[in-house]
Amino acid sequence: MKPLRFGILGTAGIARKNWKAIFHSGNCTVTAVASRELDRARQFIAENQRETPFPTTPTPFGSYEALLASPDVDAVYLPLPTALRKEWVLHAAAARKHIVCEKPCAISAPDLDEMLAACRQHRVQFLDGVMFMHAPRLAALRQLLDDGDTLGELRRITSQFTFLGHDGFLEKNIRAQAHLEPLGCLGDLGWYNLRFALWANRWQLPRTVTAQTLRQTETGVPLDFSGELQFPNGVSSGFYCSFVTFRQQWANVGGTRGYLQVHDFVNPFYGHETGFDVTQILQDGPRAVPHVRRVTVPGHACAHPTAPEAALFRNFAAQVATGQINPDWPEWARLTQLVSDACLTSAKTGKPVTLPAA
Amino acid sequence: MKPLRFGILGTAGIARKNWKAIFHSGNCTVTAVASRELDRARQFIAENQRETPFPTTPTPFGSYEALLASPDVDAVYLPLPTALRKEWVLHAAAARKHIVCEKPCAISAPDLDEMLAACRQHRVQFLDGVMFMHAPRLAALRQLLDDGDTLGELRRITSQFTFLGHDGFLEKNIRAQAHLEPLGCLGDLGWYNLRFALWANRWQLPRTVTAQTLRQTETGVPLDFSGELQFPNGVSSGFYCSFVTFRQQWANVGGTRGYLQVHDFVNPFYGHETGFDVTQILQDGPRAVPHVRRVTVPGHACAHPTAPEAALFRNFAAQVATGQINPDWPEWARLTQLVSDACLTSAKTGKPVTLPAA
Repeated sequence: MKPLRFGILGTAGIARKNWKAIFHSGNCTVTAVASRELDRARQFIAENQRETPFPTTPTPFGSYEALLASPDVDAVYLPLPTALRKEWVLHAAAARKHIVCEKPCAISAPDLDEMLAACRQHRVQFLDGVMFMHAPRLAALRQLLDDGDTLGELRRITSQFTFLGHDGFLEKNIRAQAHLEPLGCLGDLGWYNLRFALWANRWQLPRTVTAQTLRQTETGVPLDFSGELQFPNGVSSGFYCSFVTFRQQWANVGGTRGYLQVHDFVNPFYGHETGFDVTQILQDGPRAVPHVRRVTVPGHACAHPTAPEAALFRNFAAQVATGQINPDWPEWARLTQLVSDACLTSAKTGKPVTLPAA
Repeated sequence: MKPLRFGILGTAGIARKNWKAIFHSGNCTVTAVASRELDRARQFIAENQRETPFPTTPTPFGSYEALLASPDVDAVYLPLPTALRKEWVLHAAAARKHIVCEKPCAISAPDLDEMLAACRQHRVQFLDGVMFMHAPRLAALRQLLDDGDTLGELRRITSQFTFLGHDGFLEKNIRAQAHLEPLGCLGDLGWYNLRFALWANRWQLPRTVTAQTLRQTETGVPLDFSGELQFPNGVSSGFYCSFVTFRQQWANVGGTRGYLQVHDFVNPFYGHETGFDVTQILQDGPRAVPHVRRVTVPGHACAHPTAPEAALFRNFAAQVATGQINPDWPEWARLTQLVSDACLTSAKTGKPVTLPAA
């Protein structure tokens, strides 16, 4: 099979991680990198080739348009700031390049709808950069969630994804800048919380969303945010995401018979081991003691063929190779964006937001 | 020191546990038990004396009034349903009996204010039955929370306290009956979530409370409930309590430098061991891995001198022996009830509730 040839639009930090991911996918390659300054593209390529060399050195481009016009590019990876994603997804789709788009995919659900319509029109595959969706661990979690026995009926999903911005983070990092990343921690971190809840509850759209911005920049970018989703099937989910709280990235899924805990649901903490804990009460009665067992799933954190992001690019290339569009992937992004929009609206209005039935 | 002589008002299941707690306190004794039916008081005494005998068999009473009139009673333990607590706290205070009152203490904060005013007037000590406040583990948690180093600045408190009601629970158990327990799972379980958050954040009153009843009985009793507290110091807390979700009772306290996890913050799960986990990142840098250490604190789950509820009665008797009233204890109950009221109001109105500055 010919490897899927990626062009990288932009040289953000996350693109370095995904250069490695493309390398370790086994079925993709990088053939081009574009920056608005040609030298930056050259430097990015030189640095990354030194660490993780592709057999053929990718071509640097001094504009995104030029990269999109290249016949040596089948697909683009888009790590540009959120405010620029719509424009470049529309361009990339028109250029018939398949698209892996960083999250949050857009500023708002109507914007994303336009982007996804363009992808459909030009028959290009769209996927957002939520790595954990492609981790082998997720399949193991799904199996336990769905066996009808371990957890019983699903009831509650709680998650937290936080990290502490360093000194100067709020001033310098684009993740707190209103014109580039207006969704702040909700887009950067909460996107994972929402995605996990939607996934765990099998893509139901919540009926009601209540949320609050706990801290924000002077320009209104959320830095500390919490929300509550109520699903039509009686499941609920609470989440918290923040740039001002020490790194935590856990999810807890509780049912009527037991619960699952994932301590590192976004990025595996422990380098070479991934897994989760399952708690059940195996004996009945008032003195019953919970039984906790660890389920381990082979997998590495990053820069390895078993890392979630390598699996993401591998799955993407395999899908593109079929010649068919996977309609689930853009739909996952659309649902996440809808709920994210509802969270922001609730936080701004101080009222619960009711979503239309899916 | 003469033991503090308790009368038990009512023969609910929880009173059996606290008979044992009084026994194991080492400085209390039960001298009287009242039920509206004398035979039920007799039977309760006989059964409990068989298992955990006091040297002198307590006296059965066929009315609460009669017990309160007894000169052999210094203090009462009040496990009556919530709807009856106000009446009997007022009677007990007038009879100059010190009071250990089950939670939730009252139907509403104004009711509790009347009850606490009566206690002040008659100079009797009031304490609610939140056992974990008296567990040795709490002092160890406090120390780490306050050392300024382990967690850094406090940011987020999340907790869940749930259990699955058995078949028939909703029909038969008083905890779901509107006329006796109108606060449902919020009063029975959420009281602990709120208390934990108030305690962890050093008794600040939240400025804003947002909450939702996720499921309720036909008569409006909450069965599944979640809420979010925003404190003036920028700390926030999310909680979930439920009668329809498998037993979980965890709390997570996160700061800017680390976090604490208590897996069984209400009733120690593991029989003869209590403790919690502390997670920190000890090395800096992007590949830093969290370090988890277990802190263990000697303690038993119940029916033992080191159990939290034995410590509760021991602390209570020691306080009464000083001849002074501890004003913190009724204040803890008052703050918890205020926040509980705000949660219910928010859930009913679908709006955030703003609390007055303390």
